[in-house]
Amino acid sequence: MSEGLPRYAYLGPAGTFTEAALRQVAAVGECVDLPVADVASAIDAVRTGDADFAVVAIESTVEGGVTATLDSLAAGDPLVILREMLVPVQFTLAAAPGVRLQDVRRISAHPHAWVQCRRWLAHHLPSVVHVPATSNTAPAALIAAGRSGTDAALGFDAALVPPAAVESYGLVPLAENVADNVSAQTRFVVVGHPGDVPPATGADKTTLVVHLPDNEAGALLAMLEQFAVRGVNLSRIESRPIGDALGRYSFSLDAEGHITDERVGEAVMGLHRRCPFVRFLGSYPRADAVEPTVHVGTADTDFVGARAWLQQVRGGTAT
Amino acid sequence: MSEGLPRYAYLGPAGTFTEAALRQVAAVGECVDLPVADVASAIDAVRTGDADFAVVAIESTVEGGVTATLDSLAAGDPLVILREMLVPVQFTLAAAPGVRLQDVRRISAHPHAWVQCRRWLAHHLPSVVHVPATSNTAPAALIAAGRSGTDAALGFDAALVPPAAVESYGLVPLAENVADNVSAQTRFVVVGHPGDVPPATGADKTTLVVHLPDNEAGALLAMLEQFAVRGVNLSRIESRPIGDALGRYSFSLDAEGHITDERVGEAVMGLHRRCPFVRFLGSYPRADAVEPTVHVGTADTDFVGARAWLQQVRGGTAT
Amino acid sequence: MSEGLPRYAYLGPAGTFTEAALRQVAAVGECVDLPVADVASAIDAVRTGDADFAVVAIESTVEGGVTATLDSLAAGDPLVILREMLVPVQFTLAAAPGVRLQDVRRISAHPHAWVQCRRWLAHHLPSVVHVPATSNTAPAALIAAGRSGTDAALGFDAALVPPAAVESYGLVPLAENVADNVSAQTRFVVVGHPGDVPPATGADKTTLVVHLPDNEAGALLAMLEQFAVRGVNLSRIESRPIGDALGRYSFSLDAEGHITDERVGEAVMGLHRRCPFVRFLGSYPRADAVEPTVHVGTADTDFVGARAWLQQVRGGTAT
Amino acid sequence: MSEGLPRYAYLGPAGTFTEAALRQVAAVGECVDLPVADVASAIDAVRTGDADFAVVAIESTVEGGVTATLDSLAAGDPLVILREMLVPVQFTLAAAPGVRLQDVRRISAHPHAWVQCRRWLAHHLPSVVHVPATSNTAPAALIAAGRSGTDAALGFDAALVPPAAVESYGLVPLAENVADNVSAQTRFVVVGHPGDVPPATGADKTTLVVHLPDNEAGALLAMLEQFAVRGVNLSRIESRPIGDALGRYSFSLDAEGHITDERVGEAVMGLHRRCPFVRFLGSYPRADAVEPTVHVGTADTDFVGARAWLQQVRGGTAT
Repeated sequence: MSEGLPRYAYLGPAGTFTEAALRQVAAVGECVDLPVADVASAIDAVRTGDADFAVVAIESTVEGGVTATLDSLAAGDPLVILREMLVPVQFTLAAAPGVRLQDVRRISAHPHAWVQCRRWLAHHLPSVVHVPATSNTAPAALIAAGRSGTDAALGFDAALVPPAAVESYGLVPLAENVADNVSAQTRFVVVGHPGDVPPATGADKTTLVVHLPDNEAGALLAMLEQFAVRGVNLSRIESRPIGDALGRYSFSLDAEGHITDERVGEAVMGLHRRCPFVRFLGSYPRADAVEPTVHVGTADTDFVGARAWLQQVRGGTAT
Repeated sequence: MSEGLPRYAYLGPAGTFTEAALRQVAAVGECVDLPVADVASAIDAVRTGDADFAVVAIESTVEGGVTATLDSLAAGDPLVILREMLVPVQFTLAAAPGVRLQDVRRISAHPHAWVQCRRWLAHHLPSVVHVPATSNTAPAALIAAGRSGTDAALGFDAALVPPAAVESYGLVPLAENVADNVSAQTRFVVVGHPGDVPPATGADKTTLVVHLPDNEAGALLAMLEQFAVRGVNLSRIESRPIGDALGRYSFSLDAEGHITDERVGEAVMGLHRRCPFVRFLGSYPRADAVEPTVHVGTADTDFVGARAWLQQVRGGTAT
Repeated sequence: MSEGLPRYAYLGPAGTFTEAALRQVAAVGECVDLPVADVASAIDAVRTGDADFAVVAIESTVEGGVTATLDSLAAGDPLVILREMLVPVQFTLAAAPGVRLQDVRRISAHPHAWVQCRRWLAHHLPSVVHVPATSNTAPAALIAAGRSGTDAALGFDAALVPPAAVESYGLVPLAENVADNVSAQTRFVVVGHPGDVPPATGADKTTLVVHLPDNEAGALLAMLEQFAVRGVNLSRIESRPIGDALGRYSFSLDAEGHITDERVGEAVMGLHRRCPFVRFLGSYPRADAVEPTVHVGTADTDFVGARAWLQQVRGGTAT
Repeated sequence: MSEGLPRYAYLGPAGTFTEAALRQVAAVGECVDLPVADVASAIDAVRTGDADFAVVAIESTVEGGVTATLDSLAAGDPLVILREMLVPVQFTLAAAPGVRLQDVRRISAHPHAWVQCRRWLAHHLPSVVHVPATSNTAPAALIAAGRSGTDAALGFDAALVPPAAVESYGLVPLAENVADNVSAQTRFVVVGHPGDVPPATGADKTTLVVHLPDNEAGALLAMLEQFAVRGVNLSRIESRPIGDALGRYSFSLDAEGHITDERVGEAVMGLHRRCPFVRFLGSYPRADAVEPTVHVGTADTDFVGARAWLQQVRGGTAT
């Protein structure tokens, strides 16, 4: 019985990197797995109530920010990030039983997977042809359905798949760890409703989307100064076109600290006052548990003390 | 005879948006067209000498910077951008003669094309299935090769293609202008060798790749101040992960002005002194021909005058 | 009967520029005049309760900030500026009846008056000798006491005095408007107790004394950014050595706006958090009644709106 | 014979602090001493050729910048500072032989000396009267001329004088070290012609006068950024009213480094381009011999390297 268990929408099916991320949050049996076809669907499932949470990739060391996730969070009913998880990204070249590496002519792979294994492929299989797949596990499922070896109808001989998918789909590994960047990893997040923001732990980050008031360099400088003047460091900053014209940008930011921190709150209010659009996308514990540097005069007690002092100054009782 | 004509590598085949961009530079017959399979191959063709120039997309209103182009230019032998061209981005849903809109169940499309028509598709063909293609014209070529109507072997019934591809491949339009964003456009560039940098026109831009000295917000602020203090505006700024670890970023920038402008030269030298990596990717006329705002004290004559004055000050002859 | 009338300490005696400033505040008979010997005594009289208010010079166009006033306000029991008044600064060369300009060999003048008339004196009385006086009216009083013409015992023949002092002391003008700078003026202020801060009028200024956290240029930049990021302009900034070592400075500032303005309050709290010493020296109407430029996002309603929004964000109810 | 010896104008006569500063530069007999009546006259003597150099006070720990020196250097034919010297500032209360401390009713003192001994006087001689003097040694000379004890014609009983003046004028000390601030010192400078700027020593400072383009806080920020962006620290910054209207300021600055340093040269050129008035007042060794912090990328070799690189970039030969 899964009644009462939390429901997680994620980019399925089983064997994806996203499922690996989900397993860091809830073991099999501790939640209801709701595999969906893409990131936007996972996030929408939370908005419609079909799921309680979504697990989605938000940033990879290789490709940068995940456009679909950032865009889905930036528009529509407000959702927030509740937690982040890091998953190492590796690929296995796998095929149906019986296929040998030297027989491989066409490889099915999601375009991102293909890009991440480009150098390995150029070196080991220079004349191989790319057959694009809609996901990292789709070709594994096709092979599993066929269960044959090289199959003309299949249209490819082997696939680049996540390690976890090899066994799940009954494939045979032809080469392991074929991604060019051995330290590649992807950051995943749990997305949920704004009412569930977790309390500050002392090692948190806050994610924001901000549109600049205009497209001058000065506007970006001014935005960064809203953080700097309150002693808030940024651990991530990415620009994205707003989409209606070349030259207008949206910034996706991770600030060190929690929205309930005084310095973060004041910086975010500064953005709200000066920028045409600011959306809070959550405060949550950092996966690396690194505590922020708190600069002189920017601890909560400094803000509280300054407020009390201003009260005295305004009341004519400061000493 | 094409002997002596300039050779342009571009993302082919005929009918792509890239070919439309190339046609802004050289009419059919005025150059040798060298269609290649991807952006990286086009750029490499210039490096190897197989082509004189490459025409590649660098930024779209919908997706932002084109990762493959930015990455290919940032590494390897130095190349520079010589010119930019703007191309409106629209899509036509097309099929082999005889196919009717109501028969369409599976649509082949490059993933980027699919994303750009998502709302139209959700509204008009809500249950249609996406069959990924490696390029915008690949499905048109497949249809042309089959020349049949709905074809099980083909695996799809219709395709999202650039308007120019419809006629080229003998297709029939089922619906035109199906992209969600009617003002979408893509910026293309001509890439060539560093010795060919065009002279300043007074309405130029300069493209740079810069790595920050560390991953603090302060480093980005300091980089932007190198431009601001010399009165150089930025018309584009995009961050990309460097790829070896989460949290390290490379910035791709367009600065207003030409590398031979005094203010741009001094700003770029400032970057060179402070940043671990700076690559010049060209100075070239702006497609929109907008002249930069020259702030007080930042014209070439101001720099030349200041240098003469400093010479006098150092020599003890300033008055 | 002066019972119940407000008591004003000021740099006397009658005829000084300070008395002219006092007369802008209260006519003869509307207050009790308490002439004292120097600025520090006037300010101390308020601290001790001997006076209700002090009228003192704070800044002149010629000499800059008045050190004695700034120092007296910066230390000791807190007092605040309640009002400012502008007084044109002119001098008359005057003497006892019977003295002729061509007889003048020695002129008594306060050193500041001497400096302000230097060019006139060099041109008209090139060989005249300066006899320093302790105030602008002291020599007038000496002449009045002697009532004779050139008097060896007096030690001087004529004096540089404020126009108002000529008649008060029964002198005769030898030359009028002898100050070199015809537009010179001095800013005077009324000093009182912190509980009497006047309400905001919409055209106010706020005076502060701030010590920087260290003696780097970066610290001054950081202080100025506390104002800039909240859109608060500074109309005056002066540095003074702190006095215990070369290289440590105190800054005296006038910020546009009232301490009860949200943007001023937040900026001042920022200073309080980061700087080792901040003293509020009053918010009061500008003599020139110029209203400040309120930059986008820095009106009180913007701050109030941002606070309400942050409350919703923290509570999970932002839309 | 003094023929051929360098001639130094200074605020005399013998016994002044300025003479003590001069003695750090040239012993008696190694130069021609030209005592003059005030700072402006000393500086003018260099302009007219009556002296080769002037020794003048430029900054004190108690009073801050010496207005007369800063103003005389800022206007008129260009002169530069060639060297700086630090002199401890102490005062002795002295009188003619026979005068006892308990007899002292009136003390002659330069107003600055009076200010610096205020607390001592208030404590030990609370009812004493100030008789202003035109210099620190003038009252000593008057006493010496009279050589009597308390003398009605003299108008005072004792004087605050520099320690060196006590013996010079045959006075008797009544109390020594009466200045309130025991660590007070004054910075003196040698002023000469621009052609004599000494070479860089590695521990130099550069003095400048700068007028801001307008009177906004933003203009001051922009000026400071001209230094910050080139990694040049400021060791002194003082504002002075320009004199023609309240609200317009001139800044007097000491920057770390020598005008021949690349980073200093570029910063100063930046000021020249943006500010309505910049005057170079000399580069000279620091009295404290402290070497500047050279920030990453701001050494001379970094500037030279950046220039060579820009040359290659512009020529199309950068690698």
